[in-house]
Amino acid sequence: MNIAIDMMGGDFAPLEPVKGLKLYMQHNSAAANIFCIGDEAQVKPLLDEYGLSASNVTVIHAPEVIGYHEHPTKALKEKQRSSIAIGFHLLATGKVDAFISAGNTGAMLVGTMFTIKAIEGVTRPTIATVVPKLNGSTGLILDAGLNVDCKPEHLSQFATLGSLYAKYIIGILNPRVGLLNVGEEEGKGNVLAQATYPLLKENSSIHFVGNVEGRDLIHDKADVVVCDGFTGNVVLKMAESIYDIAQTRHLQNDEYLHRFHYENYGGTPVLGVAKPVIIGHGISSDKAFMNMVHLAAKMVETGFCSVLKEAFHEE
Amino acid sequence: MNIAIDMMGGDFAPLEPVKGLKLYMQHNSAAANIFCIGDEAQVKPLLDEYGLSASNVTVIHAPEVIGYHEHPTKALKEKQRSSIAIGFHLLATGKVDAFISAGNTGAMLVGTMFTIKAIEGVTRPTIATVVPKLNGSTGLILDAGLNVDCKPEHLSQFATLGSLYAKYIIGILNPRVGLLNVGEEEGKGNVLAQATYPLLKENSSIHFVGNVEGRDLIHDKADVVVCDGFTGNVVLKMAESIYDIAQTRHLQNDEYLHRFHYENYGGTPVLGVAKPVIIGHGISSDKAFMNMVHLAAKMVETGFCSVLKEAFHEE
Repeated sequence: MNIAIDMMGGDFAPLEPVKGLKLYMQHNSAAANIFCIGDEAQVKPLLDEYGLSASNVTVIHAPEVIGYHEHPTKALKEKQRSSIAIGFHLLATGKVDAFISAGNTGAMLVGTMFTIKAIEGVTRPTIATVVPKLNGSTGLILDAGLNVDCKPEHLSQFATLGSLYAKYIIGILNPRVGLLNVGEEEGKGNVLAQATYPLLKENSSIHFVGNVEGRDLIHDKADVVVCDGFTGNVVLKMAESIYDIAQTRHLQNDEYLHRFHYENYGGTPVLGVAKPVIIGHGISSDKAFMNMVHLAAKMVETGFCSVLKEAFHEE
Repeated sequence: MNIAIDMMGGDFAPLEPVKGLKLYMQHNSAAANIFCIGDEAQVKPLLDEYGLSASNVTVIHAPEVIGYHEHPTKALKEKQRSSIAIGFHLLATGKVDAFISAGNTGAMLVGTMFTIKAIEGVTRPTIATVVPKLNGSTGLILDAGLNVDCKPEHLSQFATLGSLYAKYIIGILNPRVGLLNVGEEEGKGNVLAQATYPLLKENSSIHFVGNVEGRDLIHDKADVVVCDGFTGNVVLKMAESIYDIAQTRHLQNDEYLHRFHYENYGGTPVLGVAKPVIIGHGISSDKAFMNMVHLAAKMVETGFCSVLKEAFHEE
């Protein structure tokens, strides 16, 4: 298995990617071949310093970097030798099986859509975020911000994608799908939710359990919750702010509140595209990078993208 | 000042309304004339038991009750002698200055819209919820669920209504208004948010500070945050679930987390209608009822509905 990491992406790159890789390799030294894409002069000495000169760690020199404020399409086109452009090139040509970056999110999305492309049958690839439940389990909510305006059919596809992710990556056997709504009863909601409900009921590839409300997200009412990306993004950021509360109130040692720390999840995969792409938070720490490598490895191991291809081929 | 309370509304009625009134009267014994609407045979003995037989507490007998699962319009029409119907009758005819109920929310809304009516110029009355900020201040978010599908003009009116509420009721001199969105920059967002931004910029009756994200709700970036009622309802219920977390994790003594307990706010006023109507949570406790009476008194004292009428008259 070959995994590529953009060493130049993230506010604390390349140090945190290197440290994250160190954390990963401590317990998975021979599990994967890691391709570190970045400025050789910066990355190599750090890898040496952290004892990461093993034969399964290869540096791929990228003399350019796409900055946070650059225009995604323009930057990708003009900076062919940037770490992000090289990462997508390696992934598209099959030289690596997964690509991870905490760099310019727009460039990552543009690269994913135009270089890797959506799986046939998927009209809108999506991003998901995990929500820690009070009972210890883990839920998924999607779309988390990629598709801010959605149609009912999109939400139904998110339900299928999320269910497969919950099953193969989170390990939930028969994931229950809920529709985020303002009330429990069928017929509640805005125009989108009202029109989505019957589609979810008819969707034979999911186990639909009805509407869930904002308060249900932390309770164990559904494993996968679907909504438009506007609402999902607000939910995601509110959930992240629960960790802000924990820090400010000196409650971060609480086992449950600690689970809201973004670094536990690392990054979000783009679901519905042909190959594993994982996009990290700009502030990604070593632990976040470690978890992104774990996630990439799991997506490759389980053949997750092939599972999606089959599922949408049958539809 | 005359305030009417539905003694039959709420899961724990009439006991909690009576206890809430007791809490209120302890410190405000002569401030208002209270009209207790409900089944005399149940309410009178309780008022006596709690020592609330003062001359400024009057029982108005209501032989009927609208249940939680009754159809609002039908029930209001058929049960003219219900506590909710009588409450609206007293308010509409000027016999009381404000009406409070934790009963059937739909019936409360229907009564408000058809008996009390929107202020001229207000196209969509709205409900708001307060959000405790980490720095100790209090923010407002609206719409909180009354208008699940909105147009940009509605959000602009919510901004005006919310600003006046923040100024006159919460006591914030020059409230900053934010637009709930998925990013900070102008141009971000779904179709609704993108179209609302320029309207808020042009709205001369508010102090618009730009977009705010889900994580900003607990930080002090804006005093009043506007969004459609679908998103707002999800936010409201997620915020309420923060108190669930506090309880489950035995952190409810944390001063900040405790502020997420719904009973601190009691109920939500319907903003943009001609007279003060306050709708309580079904599970309203004594403290919630006490706070609803306080809120009603403040809305009457400040002449809040007249302030709104003037503001929308000028527009």
